[in-house]
Amino acid sequence: MKKEIITITFAVVTALAINSLNAQDMSNGKLDKIEVTEDMQPVNPDWFTGTGWLEMLVTDTDTFGVSVGNVIFKPGCRNHWHKHPGGQLLIVTDGMGYYQERGKPVQVLHKGDVVAIYPGVEHWHGATPDSWFAHMALGTNPEAAPTEWMEPVSDDVYFNLDK
Amino acid sequence: MKKEIITITFAVVTALAINSLNAQDMSNGKLDKIEVTEDMQPVNPDWFTGTGWLEMLVTDTDTFGVSVGNVIFKPGCRNHWHKHPGGQLLIVTDGMGYYQERGKPVQVLHKGDVVAIYPGVEHWHGATPDSWFAHMALGTNPEAAPTEWMEPVSDDVYFNLDK
Repeated sequence: MKKEIITITFAVVTALAINSLNAQDMSNGKLDKIEVTEDMQPVNPDWFTGTGWLEMLVTDTDTFGVSVGNVIFKPGCRNHWHKHPGGQLLIVTDGMGYYQERGKPVQVLHKGDVVAIYPGVEHWHGATPDSWFAHMALGTNPEAAPTEWMEPVSDDVYFNLDK
Repeated sequence: MKKEIITITFAVVTALAINSLNAQDMSNGKLDKIEVTEDMQPVNPDWFTGTGWLEMLVTDTDTFGVSVGNVIFKPGCRNHWHKHPGGQLLIVTDGMGYYQERGKPVQVLHKGDVVAIYPGVEHWHGATPDSWFAHMALGTNPEAAPTEWMEPVSDDVYFNLDK
């Protein structure tokens, strides 16, 4: 009986430790879940593959000269290729994601990473296939022309990225 | 012996669960530690009480019209009262902190919170006494006059905040 209890104890402690590692975001940043509040709206399916949510948090661009939106991506969710005539900054707040510019290798993003996307640079971003992902998207130069959307990132490309 | 092992098991599992809660950032966001990389510089002691670090991540304000700096505060660290003629946006990336405007109650900040600080509004921000804290600071309207610094937030005020 003693041996059995110790075995069970070991199993429980190991399971907790593994769960803790995922939740602690200490291994590679992979997250099983990010809370989506009811203030968030589904992203536009014309511009995204998969499931994501957006909430605009700063819209007074007359005062600040920049907008801020919180975007949450379920695993596998990514936006189509696009470019911003006014540029964009991404600040990663949770999970693990991808960012890729046309003709370049994909970059893996983790909490605390900041991406400066220059005006006119074609790119896409989103979650990895096995992690939730969240970033703040800063719309810079709000007086510039709106975002130009292009083709989706196909499954063939997304699941065979050159990392 | 069986009872003893079960008791020890319970103690170990409870201890792990409590540790896990802190690390998971699921209770109140309190964090025992945030990693400070060697790229970070100590904050200016003329403008801060306690220990903190800063790293500028986006400085091309000609292109983006906004700067981005990562600021990490040790528990108890806070900046002096100050105001930004061009305004500022804070995006909380980790831990638990405070933000207070002159004459208003303090606000407790957690990961994902965004604070819009209007031009000329007197305020201070920093960690809580018992948690590390990190935010991105966005300097808006970079052509505006520099930050105006005022008196420190005394221990008497900081440790007796009206929450």
